[in-house]
Amino acid sequence: MTKQERGTRTRDALIRSAAGEFDLHGYALATLSAISVGAGVSPGALHFHFENKAAIAEAVEGAACTTLRRTARIAYRHRSNALQNLADTTHALARLFREDIVVRAGFRLSCANDSRTELNLRQEWQSCVQQRLAEAADEGLLAAGVGRQQDLARTIVAATVGLVTLCQDTGEWLSPQTITGLWRTLLPTLTAPEALAELEPAGTAAVITRSLDPVG
Amino acid sequence: MTKQERGTRTRDALIRSAAGEFDLHGYALATLSAISVGAGVSPGALHFHFENKAAIAEAVEGAACTTLRRTARIAYRHRSNALQNLADTTHALARLFREDIVVRAGFRLSCANDSRTELNLRQEWQSCVQQRLAEAADEGLLAAGVGRQQDLARTIVAATVGLVTLCQDTGEWLSPQTITGLWRTLLPTLTAPEALAELEPAGTAAVITRSLDPVG
Repeated sequence: MTKQERGTRTRDALIRSAAGEFDLHGYALATLSAISVGAGVSPGALHFHFENKAAIAEAVEGAACTTLRRTARIAYRHRSNALQNLADTTHALARLFREDIVVRAGFRLSCANDSRTELNLRQEWQSCVQQRLAEAADEGLLAAGVGRQQDLARTIVAATVGLVTLCQDTGEWLSPQTITGLWRTLLPTLTAPEALAELEPAGTAAVITRSLDPVG
Repeated sequence: MTKQERGTRTRDALIRSAAGEFDLHGYALATLSAISVGAGVSPGALHFHFENKAAIAEAVEGAACTTLRRTARIAYRHRSNALQNLADTTHALARLFREDIVVRAGFRLSCANDSRTELNLRQEWQSCVQQRLAEAADEGLLAAGVGRQQDLARTIVAATVGLVTLCQDTGEWLSPQTITGLWRTLLPTLTAPEALAELEPAGTAAVITRSLDPVG
């Protein structure tokens, strides 16, 4: 292993350990010493990579953002239509939230009022939902009479953000079953019965799996 | 003013000041000195009423819980049917979240993983939604084929909890317009068109107003 590879590996371990501490104790109570212990490195090694706690938090947010954006991008690349893509993207992102502590912690940090960066991933998700609904309208998928795109976008954003909040109680809230139930409930409000028959609330398996492919 | 009235007034001022500090800085970073300054009382007066920060947080949670439960109870007392009651209750509770900082802070504290009490108001809200849907089924209001009460309950809980989370970004997420838009979107998934025509997504004005009547 080269010196550079070792450096990258240490940095990643620190980001992961910090995410765990932020997830467990919140930003305010997380300590640098617990983070370096969790990463199995010396305090000196931590300070070589990060000046202070704020710098690590920023790195956690950045890593979460990169992973979430990449996953959404890959799901989009394999879209069949805008509504199916919305369901697929939600399934793929939920899986990240379930499995990746950096995504969970980074998302929360980016949404906190005292966030250290300009990122707000909730707002970015809202833009994504609005764009997909606009595309669905262009594709003729939004049910006739559904002129209330803003109501629909807000309901989808609120419900998905709510699932992330609720998963603090139990991970069940972000399970594939819950996400599927959400789309079984919401898709009929979005589209006409004939289009509905073509949509899969449980997500398109290929897209969901591929989104997590590291080379995607 | 009797000594007892003065005591109650001081205690209320401390609870309100603490709610403001928790709302702004989070529980971990809120300080007793800022809370006593905010309430306009001496540190000694604070310690007369509350042993420590945890005791004040408990009082904030308790006060929020009392207000939320009372409001839900009054809305229920004036119900016409279970689905309208669900919409009315959401409107009344949203108004509390908009206007009452103790409700906002207490709700967040009760949902935090490190909550000092057994309360979890999110779970209590979930039970309330499930119960209303069961009543709606008994009243013949749930649309034929809607056997998926659990999906519906989860979607409603997720969307409403999401609105509370999102209102940290902007209060617009708990405005009467947003709540009305939510019910305009969700009610058609719950009930048949003929029942839908009788329901008011904007809430029954009398109920919403009465819920906040202090003698209710």
